[in-house]
Amino acid sequence: MYDIAIIGKGPAGISAAINAFARNKSVILFGSDSKKVILSPSIPNYPGLPDIKGVDFAKRLEDHLSSTNVETSSKKVNAIYSMGNYFSIQAEKDVYEAETVILATGVDFKKSIEGEDSFLGMGVSYCATCDAPLYKGKITTVIGYNEESYKEADFLSEICTKVYFVPVFKMEYNFNSNVEIINDTPLRFEGSMKADRLVMKNSEILADGFFVIKDSYPVSSLVPGLEVDGPHVVVNRSMETNIKGLYAAGDITGRPYQIAKAVGEGQIAVLSACDYLDKKASQ
Amino acid sequence: MYDIAIIGKGPAGISAAINAFARNKSVILFGSDSKKVILSPSIPNYPGLPDIKGVDFAKRLEDHLSSTNVETSSKKVNAIYSMGNYFSIQAEKDVYEAETVILATGVDFKKSIEGEDSFLGMGVSYCATCDAPLYKGKITTVIGYNEESYKEADFLSEICTKVYFVPVFKMEYNFNSNVEIINDTPLRFEGSMKADRLVMKNSEILADGFFVIKDSYPVSSLVPGLEVDGPHVVVNRSMETNIKGLYAAGDITGRPYQIAKAVGEGQIAVLSACDYLDKKASQ
Repeated sequence: MYDIAIIGKGPAGISAAINAFARNKSVILFGSDSKKVILSPSIPNYPGLPDIKGVDFAKRLEDHLSSTNVETSSKKVNAIYSMGNYFSIQAEKDVYEAETVILATGVDFKKSIEGEDSFLGMGVSYCATCDAPLYKGKITTVIGYNEESYKEADFLSEICTKVYFVPVFKMEYNFNSNVEIINDTPLRFEGSMKADRLVMKNSEILADGFFVIKDSYPVSSLVPGLEVDGPHVVVNRSMETNIKGLYAAGDITGRPYQIAKAVGEGQIAVLSACDYLDKKASQ
Repeated sequence: MYDIAIIGKGPAGISAAINAFARNKSVILFGSDSKKVILSPSIPNYPGLPDIKGVDFAKRLEDHLSSTNVETSSKKVNAIYSMGNYFSIQAEKDVYEAETVILATGVDFKKSIEGEDSFLGMGVSYCATCDAPLYKGKITTVIGYNEESYKEADFLSEICTKVYFVPVFKMEYNFNSNVEIINDTPLRFEGSMKADRLVMKNSEILADGFFVIKDSYPVSSLVPGLEVDGPHVVVNRSMETNIKGLYAAGDITGRPYQIAKAVGEGQIAVLSACDYLDKKASQ
């Protein structure tokens, strides 16, 4: 059981990690390097480091993080469940536990497919590696937004009788013969108890299970019960969300989408988490 | 008329200034170097600058600020008045005007004398240099918290018939003969329309005017009508106060009293001010 799990390795997440280390907490930080930072030609407004290139700033953050004993993982977090007194974090095939969680995943503007949220766990999944066993000998569909989705469809084709692959990006495919590529635009999932149909612009697919494979997921899908406002998590000035022990920081909490703001919020979020842990420990 | 006046030259104020410059606004920054930063032996938790000494961090902030065209002033701001559509800022003997103001003065825990707020401008003043002419040939009292108060009492003794000096700190005095030093503890001001009496632990002083000379003033005295909560200014997540066009950032808005938090809030405050200015300009 970690004291604090931090989801996201941008400026907010790294600030949270550095501050958690300064407070002597056990921490795991999930995420990969922030492309948004690395690709900035120049950052003029981070006090103390005038006109620094994004790639140099990212290196400084990484070096600062390396100077701590914070454990890091590049596994993708698929779901975070509040267990009342602690959190269960599903990261690819593994489950981690932490007393508090800081969400610092950045903001995701990619539109979900209609019904993606409501059918999640009921015919719709974000992780083929996790849920494939449920669909042995059945028909599945992969809606693929990235290269990983190719691997997931390939893997599914070994255990399902039929896999439909709906690519939302361009790449070369070399699938088993039971994979059918459908070039169409997904619109919505339909079904009664569970999703059994993907309606697209020009056609439909009937399947037993649907896998949506993309780089990031809507935060409302990531954390069931989380209060959101569009793509943003609702927080107060202490960076508390509506879920006890769960905090958010950085772009995910809303504008301005700026580094100093993210770094400040990462600090506030972790110090609020520390206060919460201290109170829990003294009860 | 400046676009933005920033009060306070700690991390929050400098962050605000750097961000205002990045947004191409005309800015004046009031304040002197943050002793709190300079005296920090080591700052472990400002992302990107691991384990930096306070004095080195202050130097980096100063250098970053110098790389902008932001005007700075070491004058002490005595009062900020909302004029509806803009602000009038009294800084020692001069008056400045700005469309928006960012309060980033840090937090002041020094206890006020009872009645100090309510009698301010009515027998109680924070600035002898400003208000001395009102007391020509009269009796005044200086309650002195710092070396400057010695100079102010000395100056008053040249135009007043009698000056009582109540030192709240220790130093060597060499006053004119019409200055009487009273070693007692100020408790409260009394009077009907205006303050005419200072009640102390063991004695009282009757005078026409009272000057309270200290390094910083309670923020509620600085800005009439400002909503505060103890020593803190009440703000929302956009760093807006209850007064239109007035924002606050850094320690003055509450805990945690930390640099990253201050820097993030300075950025948010100024970007909120920029939004406000843009809206005003388009009306």
